[in-house]
Amino acid sequence: MTIQLYGFWRSNAAFRVRVALALKNLAFEEIDIDILSGRQFDPGFAEVNPGHAVPTLVHDGHRISQSAAIIEYLDEVHPEPRLLPADPRERAHARSLAMVLAADAHPLTVPRVRKYLGQALGADKAAIESWCRHWTTDGLSTYERLLARRPPAPFALGTTPTIADISIAGQVALADVYRMDLATFPEVAALAKRCFALPAFADAHPFRQPGYKASGEAR
Amino acid sequence: MTIQLYGFWRSNAAFRVRVALALKNLAFEEIDIDILSGRQFDPGFAEVNPGHAVPTLVHDGHRISQSAAIIEYLDEVHPEPRLLPADPRERAHARSLAMVLAADAHPLTVPRVRKYLGQALGADKAAIESWCRHWTTDGLSTYERLLARRPPAPFALGTTPTIADISIAGQVALADVYRMDLATFPEVAALAKRCFALPAFADAHPFRQPGYKASGEAR
Repeated sequence: MTIQLYGFWRSNAAFRVRVALALKNLAFEEIDIDILSGRQFDPGFAEVNPGHAVPTLVHDGHRISQSAAIIEYLDEVHPEPRLLPADPRERAHARSLAMVLAADAHPLTVPRVRKYLGQALGADKAAIESWCRHWTTDGLSTYERLLARRPPAPFALGTTPTIADISIAGQVALADVYRMDLATFPEVAALAKRCFALPAFADAHPFRQPGYKASGEAR
Repeated sequence: MTIQLYGFWRSNAAFRVRVALALKNLAFEEIDIDILSGRQFDPGFAEVNPGHAVPTLVHDGHRISQSAAIIEYLDEVHPEPRLLPADPRERAHARSLAMVLAADAHPLTVPRVRKYLGQALGADKAAIESWCRHWTTDGLSTYERLLARRPPAPFALGTTPTIADISIAGQVALADVYRMDLATFPEVAALAKRCFALPAFADAHPFRQPGYKASGEAR
């Protein structure tokens, strides 16, 4: 069995898949697609993912795109350790938490959106950065309210990390990329800290990827 | 067992849940939250969904938000007819198709985003409408390319509709709301036509909801 991941150091969605693979102890090769330079629109990559985005996982020659679809698939074919709880209501809560970020917050800040803000609405670099921080804050705020309602114990769904923890860790990693302060999101910050204490999360952080060091954004 | 759905006639995500419930022949009561007037931010609704969005499903007193989480849950507790295939690779493909719209295209056109475009970037009504059409077109284009690679037979995953068909039907319904022409998306248009030939889809269309008739947008 071989696993390849088309990803990128800065991609929040690729981060989620890196963590899922690491938690399940599955070895993989990552192929960098520089989405900041538009490489996701190269004709060769359109064959890999007609949606022109990362991540795409290739598992024994079978391609899967979209981070949520990839993580659910990995949980079905390699069930241990579980990244979704067994109980249907708990699974629903895990997915709901994950989607607050994967479907509501993060899609608003991806490269094609940032580019279109400039092209169609004349937004300058500062306005685009502000847009990204606004929606990242919005997602973190919602997640903070959800954690206040049901505090982590110690992870979002209980004793082990799930797709819900992976998603919030990814959003926090993105906040790191935007150099945002998490002081107003104490529950989120504490949960992310517990996540990043685990090597599977720490090693997947954008700043730990080879592409970051080569990007010129490293500080 | 009682089911309540907090939804709205115009919400693409609420449409998806209405279709899923109807395909499974589950009776429900829909409670309209006027997201165009900002009712999702009312303090009373924050208790229902701290994410300030529709849909939220209430199943025997248990609340679930996010359309993908709701549909997965319904498929787990009421498995027939299946809205996700049984095979893991097919499930992954169904989720991947669904997420192209639910996680990439649709989140860019929801009311809070349209509002912020005006507030933060000074976009006028025409620019906001253009933004919505752009991202709706982008999602439909990706889906068209995915269908070209694997043509429907007759539905996206095979003989019966799944979450993938529900998602594209919702996006097409939204295109109807924006009065868009689907001529450049022949596979999408044909698939949506097959979906809307089924009462579960047709009855869930925004224009068939009581709220539409009362909205003043009806033509």
